[in-house]
Amino acid sequence: MNPRAKKTNDKLVGLAKEVLGEVNKGRNPTVEVPTRTLANVHFDEKKRVIRLGKDKQERSFFNVSQAKKFMQTFLVSAAIKEHLLESGKTTSIRDLFYMTKHSLGDTRQNTFEDQDESDPIIEDLEVTVDALREELHLFAKNRGALVGEITIVDSGDVIDCRRMGFGGYSIPSIVEEEVIQFRKVDAKFILLVEKDAVFRRLNEDKFWREHKCVLLHSEGQPARGIRRLVHRMHNELKLPLYVMVDNDPWGFYIYSVVKQGSINLAYESMRMAVPKARFIGLSSFDREKFQLPDSTLIKIDDSDISRAKQMLNYPWFQKKEWKKEIEHMLKSGVKLEIEALSAKGISFVTEEYLPKKLRDRDWLE
Amino acid sequence: MNPRAKKTNDKLVGLAKEVLGEVNKGRNPTVEVPTRTLANVHFDEKKRVIRLGKDKQERSFFNVSQAKKFMQTFLVSAAIKEHLLESGKTTSIRDLFYMTKHSLGDTRQNTFEDQDESDPIIEDLEVTVDALREELHLFAKNRGALVGEITIVDSGDVIDCRRMGFGGYSIPSIVEEEVIQFRKVDAKFILLVEKDAVFRRLNEDKFWREHKCVLLHSEGQPARGIRRLVHRMHNELKLPLYVMVDNDPWGFYIYSVVKQGSINLAYESMRMAVPKARFIGLSSFDREKFQLPDSTLIKIDDSDISRAKQMLNYPWFQKKEWKKEIEHMLKSGVKLEIEALSAKGISFVTEEYLPKKLRDRDWLE
Repeated sequence: MNPRAKKTNDKLVGLAKEVLGEVNKGRNPTVEVPTRTLANVHFDEKKRVIRLGKDKQERSFFNVSQAKKFMQTFLVSAAIKEHLLESGKTTSIRDLFYMTKHSLGDTRQNTFEDQDESDPIIEDLEVTVDALREELHLFAKNRGALVGEITIVDSGDVIDCRRMGFGGYSIPSIVEEEVIQFRKVDAKFILLVEKDAVFRRLNEDKFWREHKCVLLHSEGQPARGIRRLVHRMHNELKLPLYVMVDNDPWGFYIYSVVKQGSINLAYESMRMAVPKARFIGLSSFDREKFQLPDSTLIKIDDSDISRAKQMLNYPWFQKKEWKKEIEHMLKSGVKLEIEALSAKGISFVTEEYLPKKLRDRDWLE
Repeated sequence: MNPRAKKTNDKLVGLAKEVLGEVNKGRNPTVEVPTRTLANVHFDEKKRVIRLGKDKQERSFFNVSQAKKFMQTFLVSAAIKEHLLESGKTTSIRDLFYMTKHSLGDTRQNTFEDQDESDPIIEDLEVTVDALREELHLFAKNRGALVGEITIVDSGDVIDCRRMGFGGYSIPSIVEEEVIQFRKVDAKFILLVEKDAVFRRLNEDKFWREHKCVLLHSEGQPARGIRRLVHRMHNELKLPLYVMVDNDPWGFYIYSVVKQGSINLAYESMRMAVPKARFIGLSSFDREKFQLPDSTLIKIDDSDISRAKQMLNYPWFQKKEWKKEIEHMLKSGVKLEIEALSAKGISFVTEEYLPKKLRDRDWLE
């Protein structure tokens, strides 16, 4: 077992021993699980991330409504320990569901009926033993690709991201230090774009070579692997992170999750969020600034409006510039996709838009 | 311009010249566009692929209902010629929409209202001038990843797919010879799996090294880039292609598209379909063959049943073995996901299932 797997293993064993101790003392064995509800989530003003509070709930064996979840918690723990940590293998939460689903004794009762039951148990376990899902050797979908001025070692293979062609390096879900190391970094910053079409435009134009950066795309809301990877590059390599999204409330939200974390994954913000992430565009003011033709504008609808109004109340958008930004979208009544820049020329984003934004330090934080 | 772009360019210029000739002769300029409807699609028994028939429809300038589409066809052609082929650049169909959308003169009439209007025009153009979308320098979403016993040259960068770590090489959308070349092939076959979780299990276990193959995953229905890439590897490198999907009608359908093509893209079957693709699993008989526990079975629902019955009528499933396969699913009333194999052990798919299938030549064609 590598040192990290050993540490996670010890945590799981510790949890089991604690419960066993209670059994031996003739007590009702109980696990305390931090509560993952909105009420137990807050914005940490100092660290500038969304975090989980201190509320916990008990899960006891001798309690009709809790016994099944109690059993499931240890069933999942045991499977992770035996099949994943001890063998050094990783798997998906879907596979783990199949690995732990079986009928109980001679009854027709199953350990789990469907994956909706096993997924929350995994999340409970993550917060209870304080181990990232990746440390439990579980992977999520892998999404997104990377190219640019960095060499990455992935499972011992040296990958020069300057020579990854048009396709790029497919970002894995587990990017912890045991798997991924950084070598020879010539990048001065990281650029994360929401859309793969924009990534490909920038890659074809070799934007990353001229501007010395690492270029990634996330295909929408970034998966865990991408968030963790940019977090590591930002902190370990001291590279500023720029985020480029559509100019709509969904784009703002993507940026917001990269920056502050999300309510769902509040317990992982400290290892995934990048509070200093910079929003480089598209801004609601870009339409005037870059004289984008009216034909590229899209009317905002009711759900955009209510979403934007919600965002005005987010603690981390309580800055003059952000208020102006969101209010300008509401006032103008239109939104913009990144692709709208193509109306000014196919390589406008590479040759004009991004260079000007970077030169003018025209971003929001 | 590279020779391929030149050829496509000549086709577009040829189309324009033809129409211009009619104008000069005082005739009503007309384009003939092959009809992309179900009625004009058939299964070519000899080539064993779905193909487009010979029906065409006229699109004239002096026809109130056709004039706009006539204009759009040439607007799109001109944009492709000027902004893409001449500059050697590629872009997405979304960007092309923005590049060609503008208001007409001083009117409030736009060339296109939304992308639903420009996408079919692109498809029309593909069949009219007989050029793949990729030859028009347009890319679709890129999806899926590749690892294994092959070295690929992508835009001049040499990518050794044996040393791509856990992430793999992200498969681009455009994989034509000008962009992608094959070098040093040690693979004996290609294995395309539907699911990225299975890909990662096989990659972590280095299945491709022991069995000497190229391993790809498609994240569901394969994107154009993946289909074209396996087509090229199958034909140019003479590698058999195995497809691994869930045991459900959707899995059969994925296999069917890889093998015979689809009705939507019937005009591209000859360059994308692999009629000799082998269905390696999961088969409806695997449950008994590999003694999968009952807890892994999922009941088929009404839509599965009607989908499966449809498939029984597909001309390419008119073989005894395929009838047995589909009928067994209907009779047993259950379906299986690939992940169900995990119930037999985390690496069962790598160490038992696939080796046995290959050894026993236990696949369908």
